[in-house]
Amino acid sequence: MAKRKIYLENIPLAEALERWWKKLKEAGLDKPLAGERIPVDNSLGRVTAEAVSAKISSPFYHASAMDGYAVRFADTFGASETKPKRLRIGKESVYVDTGDPMPEGFDAVIMIEDVNIITPSLTLPPHRPRSAKRGGRGGGQGWGEEFIEIIEPATPWQHVRTIGEDIVATELILPENHIIRPVDIGALLGGGITEIVVRRKPKVVIIPTGTELVEPGAELKKGNIIEYNSRILGGMVEEWGGEAIRIKPVPDDYDAIRKAILEAIEIGDIVVINAGASLGSEDFTASIIEDIGEVIIHGVAIRPGKPVILGLMNKKPVVGIPGYPVSAFLTFRLFVKPLIYTCQGRTVPPEERIEAKLSRQVASPLGQEEFLRVKLGEVGGKLIATPVSRGAGVLMSLVRADGIVRISAQSEGLAAGSEIEVELLRQKADILNTIVCIGSHDNTLDLLANYLKKRYPEMSLSSAHVGSMGGLMALKRGEAHLAGTHLLDEETGEYNIPFLKRLLTEKKIVLVNLVYREQGLLVLRGNPKGIEGFEDLQRDDVIFINRQAGAGTRLLTDKSLKELGIELREVKGYDHEEYTHMGVASAVLSGIADTGLAILSSAVALDLDFIPVAKERYDLAIPEEFYNSEMIKRLLDIIRDDEEFRSHVLALGGYDISDMGKVIYKG
Amino acid sequence: MAKRKIYLENIPLAEALERWWKKLKEAGLDKPLAGERIPVDNSLGRVTAEAVSAKISSPFYHASAMDGYAVRFADTFGASETKPKRLRIGKESVYVDTGDPMPEGFDAVIMIEDVNIITPSLTLPPHRPRSAKRGGRGGGQGWGEEFIEIIEPATPWQHVRTIGEDIVATELILPENHIIRPVDIGALLGGGITEIVVRRKPKVVIIPTGTELVEPGAELKKGNIIEYNSRILGGMVEEWGGEAIRIKPVPDDYDAIRKAILEAIEIGDIVVINAGASLGSEDFTASIIEDIGEVIIHGVAIRPGKPVILGLMNKKPVVGIPGYPVSAFLTFRLFVKPLIYTCQGRTVPPEERIEAKLSRQVASPLGQEEFLRVKLGEVGGKLIATPVSRGAGVLMSLVRADGIVRISAQSEGLAAGSEIEVELLRQKADILNTIVCIGSHDNTLDLLANYLKKRYPEMSLSSAHVGSMGGLMALKRGEAHLAGTHLLDEETGEYNIPFLKRLLTEKKIVLVNLVYREQGLLVLRGNPKGIEGFEDLQRDDVIFINRQAGAGTRLLTDKSLKELGIELREVKGYDHEEYTHMGVASAVLSGIADTGLAILSSAVALDLDFIPVAKERYDLAIPEEFYNSEMIKRLLDIIRDDEEFRSHVLALGGYDISDMGKVIYKG
Repeated sequence: MAKRKIYLENIPLAEALERWWKKLKEAGLDKPLAGERIPVDNSLGRVTAEAVSAKISSPFYHASAMDGYAVRFADTFGASETKPKRLRIGKESVYVDTGDPMPEGFDAVIMIEDVNIITPSLTLPPHRPRSAKRGGRGGGQGWGEEFIEIIEPATPWQHVRTIGEDIVATELILPENHIIRPVDIGALLGGGITEIVVRRKPKVVIIPTGTELVEPGAELKKGNIIEYNSRILGGMVEEWGGEAIRIKPVPDDYDAIRKAILEAIEIGDIVVINAGASLGSEDFTASIIEDIGEVIIHGVAIRPGKPVILGLMNKKPVVGIPGYPVSAFLTFRLFVKPLIYTCQGRTVPPEERIEAKLSRQVASPLGQEEFLRVKLGEVGGKLIATPVSRGAGVLMSLVRADGIVRISAQSEGLAAGSEIEVELLRQKADILNTIVCIGSHDNTLDLLANYLKKRYPEMSLSSAHVGSMGGLMALKRGEAHLAGTHLLDEETGEYNIPFLKRLLTEKKIVLVNLVYREQGLLVLRGNPKGIEGFEDLQRDDVIFINRQAGAGTRLLTDKSLKELGIELREVKGYDHEEYTHMGVASAVLSGIADTGLAILSSAVALDLDFIPVAKERYDLAIPEEFYNSEMIKRLLDIIRDDEEFRSHVLALGGYDISDMGKVIYKG
Repeated sequence: MAKRKIYLENIPLAEALERWWKKLKEAGLDKPLAGERIPVDNSLGRVTAEAVSAKISSPFYHASAMDGYAVRFADTFGASETKPKRLRIGKESVYVDTGDPMPEGFDAVIMIEDVNIITPSLTLPPHRPRSAKRGGRGGGQGWGEEFIEIIEPATPWQHVRTIGEDIVATELILPENHIIRPVDIGALLGGGITEIVVRRKPKVVIIPTGTELVEPGAELKKGNIIEYNSRILGGMVEEWGGEAIRIKPVPDDYDAIRKAILEAIEIGDIVVINAGASLGSEDFTASIIEDIGEVIIHGVAIRPGKPVILGLMNKKPVVGIPGYPVSAFLTFRLFVKPLIYTCQGRTVPPEERIEAKLSRQVASPLGQEEFLRVKLGEVGGKLIATPVSRGAGVLMSLVRADGIVRISAQSEGLAAGSEIEVELLRQKADILNTIVCIGSHDNTLDLLANYLKKRYPEMSLSSAHVGSMGGLMALKRGEAHLAGTHLLDEETGEYNIPFLKRLLTEKKIVLVNLVYREQGLLVLRGNPKGIEGFEDLQRDDVIFINRQAGAGTRLLTDKSLKELGIELREVKGYDHEEYTHMGVASAVLSGIADTGLAILSSAVALDLDFIPVAKERYDLAIPEEFYNSEMIKRLLDIIRDDEEFRSHVLALGGYDISDMGKVIYKG
């Protein structure tokens, strides 16, 4: 099969959407799907496809609204405290429970509290007898007649639920295009409706393509990619009210993919092909769509997500979604979500948006609209947005993100401190319950985040790893509630305090110890290159992996090299920076580098050997204004008193918790 | 079985919640349920019961991030435009697609766009050959060696996704108590996790009790009540993440209910008994709970919902929910919702709240916290809340409500114009897309509401029926976008315009005709009392049903009686008022009255006979400020041009649409 030459375009998003929807409209795809009849009992969350009117009234008979006695209101005229009126039970009055039908000809109810029951032989207390309604005493058979005595006349239909009080037969219960809620189900059933016509759920067939794809849980070989995108997309389809049909991964074979697409068009309302949308050698999607139907757009000026394909086949929308998970997520929201809603006769609910201040500068390419993921936190009344990784392959950036900032194609980026609009990916309330920690990374922070969520499900600890110095600067700018720091002052040999005094003169800071920890050089198990210390970094066959400038670990590296008189340019890999201890450990494990400086717990986690270099103090710097807040108190309670947390920290390895939670310094 | 005497208390809500949660805590019920292990593929929307860390890194091998050639960066030193460098394909360079593993020893990728491919015999275009990777041309076997030519050196690991770029093995993917979203499923699977431990969904057993209850769809006899409450409650349980177990209705029999409760405690985490919570003769719930376990609270100072029972049996919470649907809904939210969330390790998300202005005065009893249902609409930038029916049995009040206002137990009510806080039952965006129509009722308004939603799913027409005069007053106060009106001026015989001139002097109003319609006296089929006109209302055996003061139909009644010289006190039932035409029709059909004045379509709807009285003009009065708004334009488009709508109006019966949509008056 010949492969047609397809050029990747770069069409502005608005234009792409306009052209796409114009074609959809021409194909009649801008209308909801036909309805299907289903039992009301199964209709929760579905969308009505036609208006629903009541078949019967509710109540459909006059019913007592109270426990008491049914009477004819005309019989009660003239009753008063001085001239009580007596009505024979079973003749002029009949006991009724709430909900009981009114006896024929009766048109008012007197509450049980307002009657006296009179018997010929004895006077019952004004509580109705259990058996009254069952006829035991009605009608006066047996031992004489009973009466109720009332001291006030009744008004017509008092305490009666008349026919149709709730719903009148023929009345509109639900309009078309209404999303059915639990109360709606009640009203439908009450109005005598047991089946209704709802929009059919659009069937979205998701075809993962790629010879390298394997199902989750399969044994992995180098080159395999775990097929999880179809699960992400399928989950989104369900959240939007559609029905996802995930098919097994199809290998990169033109005919196999063509066959899968043709089958999908038969069974689905929307077809989604995942990956195969860029211009790699196995990217057949566009050729196949062009062969069978029409490619309307191939390439949109967005980042990530550019190689998306929008097409039509046999009057059904076919969308080629890029393979990187973040690109897949974003393009699916932009192009497939409105389709799924339209099929159901719904409009996409507007995303919740919020104003925030950007914590650092972001450059962005001209000519492409960028979707930047950010973390959010409210610090001192200001909402601060901090960008997370921008890699289209970094799914964890989405897992961790609180929102998305759109950077216009006409913009070269955003300055630090910009006021920006953020589309929320999490609930606003959750974001306001987030403690923002910016600074040095330590594995105990992940653990702390988990314990906080365990003890207080509504709270989160968000930590951004920008190094100790970056953390203190964030405190200075009022962008964090606390900062993890382990800055060694070369002159005094003291940790952190000299830096607070120097950098945070205008802020009162409480310094609380988290842990003492061991820093050392990580090497592969068995230390194959025989590295013994920093002096080996001069060797030609040893590649180092560094930490970013401003990290406490970087300062320790520089200090160690200086003491040994090693020039930085002698160290191979000195310019290659990682942002976390685990990043360094991972680089060593995977052979990117032979060694790097990191904490013992990261060596333990990835089963590496560890050459101790220094024991250091790792503290949390907390501005006084936050130190006494409820949020921080809860965090400190866990640090100081949660035995489960503390023993969990010890289990990580390499930590000394003897001062954990202790205030080291105030100033 | 002896029935114990139970008194209904009146405990303030806050105290009831405090006492209830204190007991729950003592019983260890303030903690989440134990977890269960399930496949990640089925975990959407579930809550993690423990933190989840990655088993493997993602990617778990160094992978190319681009389509291009893998190289050793050291081999590329010195390449420049003037001194290009050639690398043999298959030896110093290897073709890779995005995602392919890096060949052993290679540490950078050069994008396909940045290489020239040189062959001994011909020069290929700079598009990579399909077969390159498949080894067809690798290694130079066959017809000589191929090269790539580059003009820039590579940097180490450029365009390479190194191991753990997305997820590092052992890294925390999700904390405990996290609600799993589609992207989380992707990250878990990518991190090598295929099963996770999530909170078990709490099983909520719902026991409907009542001899009068029948299943929906069953043939109905007087006294039957369709059992729909358990469906409302069950739907709410599902929306909150629980598993609802609805059992068949249990008759009002002490032993039967006792047995059902004992069985429910065996299978459920929470037991809910619906109805049987007040003090009627069949209300056994409290006695049974007291017999087997403990009643903690019986009777809370809320309205509706007072007779709720909060109990404990065998360390499981048992809640008696009142029978009226609105009471059931409200008490379920107050007392059961937090239980369901706690079982899942979640906190109840805060209700969305909004500030609004109350459109009319509301009296409320001292000593009871009232939950008032309101409709909301934004009119001229102000959010207006209008109370709907307060009956605990009127489920439609919940179906139609946009929110709930809490009136404190210390308050005797709220004045018109009060600033109030409303807990939203609908999305805020939907409320802002609502056209507020206050005034006279006509059946075409229901139809119009449906067509608006059909054509514009995001929009709603909310109509409150307060009569023509009430509608004009609402326009005057700026509380409605339009008012339906049919006010006949006795002096001039003219409709509506004299009233606009008199009442709305300071507002410019556009008056648009909706319909001409016939008003007449409704009587049962066959006219059993032989009513011929208003003169028959003097008869002793004829009971009339009236409309409320301010209704156009009431004016027509009064004018007709006056013309005949009939005194109002001669008319039996004159003081009994209904608020809509359908209410009048329903009263006649159900025998509450013998006749009433209403429009022909209401007679058609309920199959009544109709004695014509007058043909009248029914208009929509629209303030000029709203007349040109996008929302009202859409509404008028339907009225003027939607043929389906117009023929539907004619099918209702009794309408003349010759002037429909025509501007009658501007001023």
